[in-house]
Amino acid sequence: MTDMINPPYRLLMGPGPINADPRVHRAISAALVGQYDPVMTDYMNETMQLFRTVFQTENEQTFLIDGTSRAGIEAALVSLIKPGDKVLVPSFGRFGLLLQEIAQRAGAEVAVREIEWGTVFTPEQIEQAIVEERPKVLALVQGDTSTTMNQPLEGVGEICEKHGVLFYTDATASIGGNDLKVDEWKIDAATAGLQKCLAGPSGSSPITLSEKAVEVINSRKVIEAGIASKEQVFDEVDRIRSNYFDLAQVMDYWGPSRLNHHTEATSMLYAARECARILSEEGMEQAVQRHYHHGRAMLEGVKALGLELFGDLEHKMNNVLGVYIPEGVNGEDVRAGLLNNFGIEIGTSFGPLHGKIWRIGTMGYNARKDTVLTTLAALEAQLKRSGASVVAGGGTGAAFDYYTEVGI
Amino acid sequence: MTDMINPPYRLLMGPGPINADPRVHRAISAALVGQYDPVMTDYMNETMQLFRTVFQTENEQTFLIDGTSRAGIEAALVSLIKPGDKVLVPSFGRFGLLLQEIAQRAGAEVAVREIEWGTVFTPEQIEQAIVEERPKVLALVQGDTSTTMNQPLEGVGEICEKHGVLFYTDATASIGGNDLKVDEWKIDAATAGLQKCLAGPSGSSPITLSEKAVEVINSRKVIEAGIASKEQVFDEVDRIRSNYFDLAQVMDYWGPSRLNHHTEATSMLYAARECARILSEEGMEQAVQRHYHHGRAMLEGVKALGLELFGDLEHKMNNVLGVYIPEGVNGEDVRAGLLNNFGIEIGTSFGPLHGKIWRIGTMGYNARKDTVLTTLAALEAQLKRSGASVVAGGGTGAAFDYYTEVGI
Repeated sequence: MTDMINPPYRLLMGPGPINADPRVHRAISAALVGQYDPVMTDYMNETMQLFRTVFQTENEQTFLIDGTSRAGIEAALVSLIKPGDKVLVPSFGRFGLLLQEIAQRAGAEVAVREIEWGTVFTPEQIEQAIVEERPKVLALVQGDTSTTMNQPLEGVGEICEKHGVLFYTDATASIGGNDLKVDEWKIDAATAGLQKCLAGPSGSSPITLSEKAVEVINSRKVIEAGIASKEQVFDEVDRIRSNYFDLAQVMDYWGPSRLNHHTEATSMLYAARECARILSEEGMEQAVQRHYHHGRAMLEGVKALGLELFGDLEHKMNNVLGVYIPEGVNGEDVRAGLLNNFGIEIGTSFGPLHGKIWRIGTMGYNARKDTVLTTLAALEAQLKRSGASVVAGGGTGAAFDYYTEVGI
Repeated sequence: MTDMINPPYRLLMGPGPINADPRVHRAISAALVGQYDPVMTDYMNETMQLFRTVFQTENEQTFLIDGTSRAGIEAALVSLIKPGDKVLVPSFGRFGLLLQEIAQRAGAEVAVREIEWGTVFTPEQIEQAIVEERPKVLALVQGDTSTTMNQPLEGVGEICEKHGVLFYTDATASIGGNDLKVDEWKIDAATAGLQKCLAGPSGSSPITLSEKAVEVINSRKVIEAGIASKEQVFDEVDRIRSNYFDLAQVMDYWGPSRLNHHTEATSMLYAARECARILSEEGMEQAVQRHYHHGRAMLEGVKALGLELFGDLEHKMNNVLGVYIPEGVNGEDVRAGLLNNFGIEIGTSFGPLHGKIWRIGTMGYNARKDTVLTTLAALEAQLKRSGASVVAGGGTGAAFDYYTEVGI
């Protein structure tokens, strides 16, 4: 017989998933209630309200998609895009390529602008591409974990508004650890996941939609046949291509009409609600500051070990750092050593960066002083053991100094 | 501040979701590990093996879709169907209508056969429709909770094989509580959910695919742009319309090549694995028998209370019972009374049955003697209180008698 689940101790310092907050583990194991129990619909309403705080929005339509973060991306894009619509994707990493792929599969005509991995776009470059392409939707990743970059979004919403473009952003990797002001920045649709700075497990994707986005989506609404009344007849032409990701129907499930769609993933909702509750209690600004400081301490430590850092450091996310694998060591052997000897996981990378950089995260529950210092101490020991030359005590020393300087 | 999750006590005796097994609550709260940690990939492999037992199959491709049960349905259909393909849906309830809707949105030409809610199709009716329509795919619900009916599937696989049709079934409501022999019955694709007889929370959808189905799906495979090597160039013509539900990519994530797709929903995988472990320990035949006996005790009890039963009782699922709301009482008031006075939930219904029948479930962890007797005692008391005439002691009496007769 297969054994019961009993995972070993792991300190997850990669680009996500990371260790969930113990409060989230407690919440996810709470007893189930029925999907239309007033207790459950209250939990749904509270979850909407809590995620308005996380997204910094007053959007009524702020809720969860039952799936991993890319479920949220696909729900947003397939609901906003009609086949033939033009979508512009400024791509600066793997997740830009993913937006392109998802939009193509949704039937869009996709225009792409690419820049070197490790850099970000200027608002001027984005506006120029909009002028050239005249898209219906701009789909732009905020934080692309593949490159650690954090695309500045300030001003992009105004550009979109000026040119009549809907503005979607994938904030999976950035939200909670970097500023994301949905209303102030005029973002029409944003989606996320729990497994990064929100300190939860993968499997639920928070989403928020502006009134403009809701209008576009609801113009394609069709009530599901099994629950529509006989009088409800719908024009089929613009029907959203997916049932599961039909945000018009999902909104009717989360909204006052409570039309049945899926059966809400109750345990994951409990987890998501707790993730948002923890961040709301801390305050979004404080959470971003926490990620900034611990990310900076990690950066100073890694640099002081004598390692080289990847990408445009002015524009990296607070919560993840790209580090060149030093010459003479095998990157995967070092990662395996950290895991097997110290129980610490750091990340590998994809595409053009594969085999060239590691990615070290300081996010969510793991954006803490003890995790940063422990990881730096272990990294030094493992690198030495693997035959790399490192500055003895340099990593923890520099991190200690940074913490002293900022009073942490 | 919003309070911590602290749900009240509920005994969920509706058509699902139902109370999860306490073992599942313990499993879901286990600590997270990284997605490529050997511990995690071992858990994934074990989960595949355990669900082969549950589906009674040797299909290599047996895994989880990260979403609720309709995510599994859509993944199967959108991956099997190319736009323009013909799909036949014999529909006997709400979930037949859902298959129709999902197949239409996937671009299929859909032929439907409908029968009265509360009845099932004969294999001859299905074969005749296949001969008339010559579909590529037969999409057939096994257990439709909306009507409580359990469509016989034996022999349907042979018919499909004879006519060169792929056979998909939605077993969400039936699996674990009713026979489902994927290999013996020559089913090419089957999907499920955890929230019924599998005794878990909604949010993960187990799926199994025959070699024939895998071949059809893999003929459309395209490696995701962000992780494909430069040499990999793909014909775009037949690309699956969804990225999230692209089973060719999802199989590469679960298989030995471990190509990254989504980040597996670790906590939900822990839950799904435990659901399958519980059933494997019990044995599938024993689990079906347990559902049969407790479902039958509930049926005898409800009948002996003087209530009228819905539908073709020869073909009802073991795990759910349709009961006509007696004249002179308001169905929703009785349900609210049961919930508020006894903490017991029974189900309402959809479409043509809305306001006419309740649905009472005995499934998963709640297919037990104590839950059946408690529900019957509470139902009698609440019906009396609501002004209905019931046979005093009839419900529990008949259930006690049944249990004595079968030695439970």
